[in-house]
Amino acid sequence: MVIVIVGAGMMGSALAVPLADRGHEVRLVGTHLDEAIIVQVRKDGVHPKLALSMPTSIRAFPNDELERAAEGADAIALGVSSAGIPWATERIAPLVRPGLPIFMITKGLWLDGETLRTLPDAVRAGLPHEVRASVFPAAIAGPCIAGELARRVPTCVVVAGRDRESLDRIVELARGPYYHLFPTLDVVGAEVCAALKNAYAMGIAFALGLHEQRGGSPGSVAMHNLESATMAQSVFEMEAIVRHLGGEAATVRGLAGVGDLDVTTNGGRTGRFGRLLGLGLGRDEAIAKMDGATLECLEILTTMRQAAAAGALGPEGLAPYPLLSHMVDVALDGAPVALPLARYFGQSVSEEGASA
Amino acid sequence: MVIVIVGAGMMGSALAVPLADRGHEVRLVGTHLDEAIIVQVRKDGVHPKLALSMPTSIRAFPNDELERAAEGADAIALGVSSAGIPWATERIAPLVRPGLPIFMITKGLWLDGETLRTLPDAVRAGLPHEVRASVFPAAIAGPCIAGELARRVPTCVVVAGRDRESLDRIVELARGPYYHLFPTLDVVGAEVCAALKNAYAMGIAFALGLHEQRGGSPGSVAMHNLESATMAQSVFEMEAIVRHLGGEAATVRGLAGVGDLDVTTNGGRTGRFGRLLGLGLGRDEAIAKMDGATLECLEILTTMRQAAAAGALGPEGLAPYPLLSHMVDVALDGAPVALPLARYFGQSVSEEGASA
Repeated sequence: MVIVIVGAGMMGSALAVPLADRGHEVRLVGTHLDEAIIVQVRKDGVHPKLALSMPTSIRAFPNDELERAAEGADAIALGVSSAGIPWATERIAPLVRPGLPIFMITKGLWLDGETLRTLPDAVRAGLPHEVRASVFPAAIAGPCIAGELARRVPTCVVVAGRDRESLDRIVELARGPYYHLFPTLDVVGAEVCAALKNAYAMGIAFALGLHEQRGGSPGSVAMHNLESATMAQSVFEMEAIVRHLGGEAATVRGLAGVGDLDVTTNGGRTGRFGRLLGLGLGRDEAIAKMDGATLECLEILTTMRQAAAAGALGPEGLAPYPLLSHMVDVALDGAPVALPLARYFGQSVSEEGASA
Repeated sequence: MVIVIVGAGMMGSALAVPLADRGHEVRLVGTHLDEAIIVQVRKDGVHPKLALSMPTSIRAFPNDELERAAEGADAIALGVSSAGIPWATERIAPLVRPGLPIFMITKGLWLDGETLRTLPDAVRAGLPHEVRASVFPAAIAGPCIAGELARRVPTCVVVAGRDRESLDRIVELARGPYYHLFPTLDVVGAEVCAALKNAYAMGIAFALGLHEQRGGSPGSVAMHNLESATMAQSVFEMEAIVRHLGGEAATVRGLAGVGDLDVTTNGGRTGRFGRLLGLGLGRDEAIAKMDGATLECLEILTTMRQAAAAGALGPEGLAPYPLLSHMVDVALDGAPVALPLARYFGQSVSEEGASA
């Protein structure tokens, strides 16, 4: 089979590895941001961001050769960032024939008037009318660090789409001895988890910063109690939000929710940013220390605040989600970190008004 | 109020700190294993295992002074190990008056014929008939490392008991600015999670050992994908087991389940043991390397295997729980680690029979 991947960043390129190992002809197409990557992969097969040699069967194409790369494609995968989705949708739209499997590793939610929409639905809405009845873009979510997948670390993900038959074809295309795909029809649950986990991983990391701020050094006596309580509260709030938006609770406690939240707290830039805020740095100061790294947590917190204002989260807005609400205050408005423990798990505040 | 704590190990003694800070007169009574601890706390106030000075209002008593310590007690807390529960129940039974709040930090399940019982129910069954109608021992579960609570790290726990009024009294007695108790009537859910988390934390740590065995060193490219997938599978199986035993799914995704599982994987002896097994050490070799540390994971895996054999887990025994079943094979029977990823999340094995 011929599979075209649009977007040659870390995650799109990592996805090429199990697909190539499965025996497919993988054509990796860079965006205009990926030019240097494509040049180097063509030159010596090394992906500069993943820092490894790609399987030799993978062919790399620059942005302007997408049409040539897509000739005879049996499936298209999108590996662009959420900001790149409108562009990528426009580029692939003329190339999509009826029934073509499309899957994407991009995560995000998009506020459309008063409704939060998922990216697979947004992509589908941008396809020509004549293919829409038979094309159901699916999203891959779950605990998957790109550098690990590219190095063939055993990885389990969910693939979420609105059509069972398309899902089964995608699973059959992509599965392999170290890449396990679990299909689900719960697109809303998977995508809401995939987006929110970036925010909640930041909140969980507050504890590390608080610990250091109080003079602690990493070690067995740290603030793991606080981190893990905040992780449980994150799952509690994610489930409530997913239910409100029409998704399934089971998704939250699976790979897309608990699994991805856990892997995201296991390091990475979101955790570093949360730690800086916990240390007491102001919001702008913390952002400045991140050296321009993309902070998905800020994007999703902004979207959730707008969604609450638009009524998309119900009449109470952010109030039923004290941790999310606090993270908005800290990361968007510069409030100091004070985790609202006394309001965790649906409790009302006791007179002690305790926080950490 | 006067609160007696029976058991002066790490966790029982840590509990003394928030209770003393709440203004109670705390009487910490050692078991016969705690003699050296009691002697030192009496001498200079330092708890040798917690390695800190206890609040000066805490009074320490040796085992044979329990009766004197219990004079006028308004509540009793049990801080003994699960193996010590029969002994502790016998010791406190004559001292319990009607309506006395009892709470315990001991975790475990106990196979009684064909039924798995929780420790609070086991303690209650050992109390004199005339107080049983008004005494409902409650269990504290959730992410709580003793050394952190004793150092006043903000901590959230559930307190699970079968009587709402008793629960409310215990919450009121114990809560404070850094110790948050969330009451629940789901004793089965909380106790099954509290027991099983030790086993599952071992399985999650397999990934670390596998990573090192394959030549990896700790760092950003590790096996976090595998760890987090296995964490999600742990939650999936714990929920199925809790439901089967009559508990509530919500407990599994709260503090007692996700929270405690997360804190337990954040280090400690269970994780070290799992890593050794993942490294390829035989079961006996791994146990020998643990220098005699108590391995709760072996206790609960043994109990679960016996429970399955007795029919307490239903007609299919351990089969619906492939991770638990694999952990039994590895930790009790010496099988090599090969995480059954292809059977995660209720999937049947594909022809690739993939494992990690």
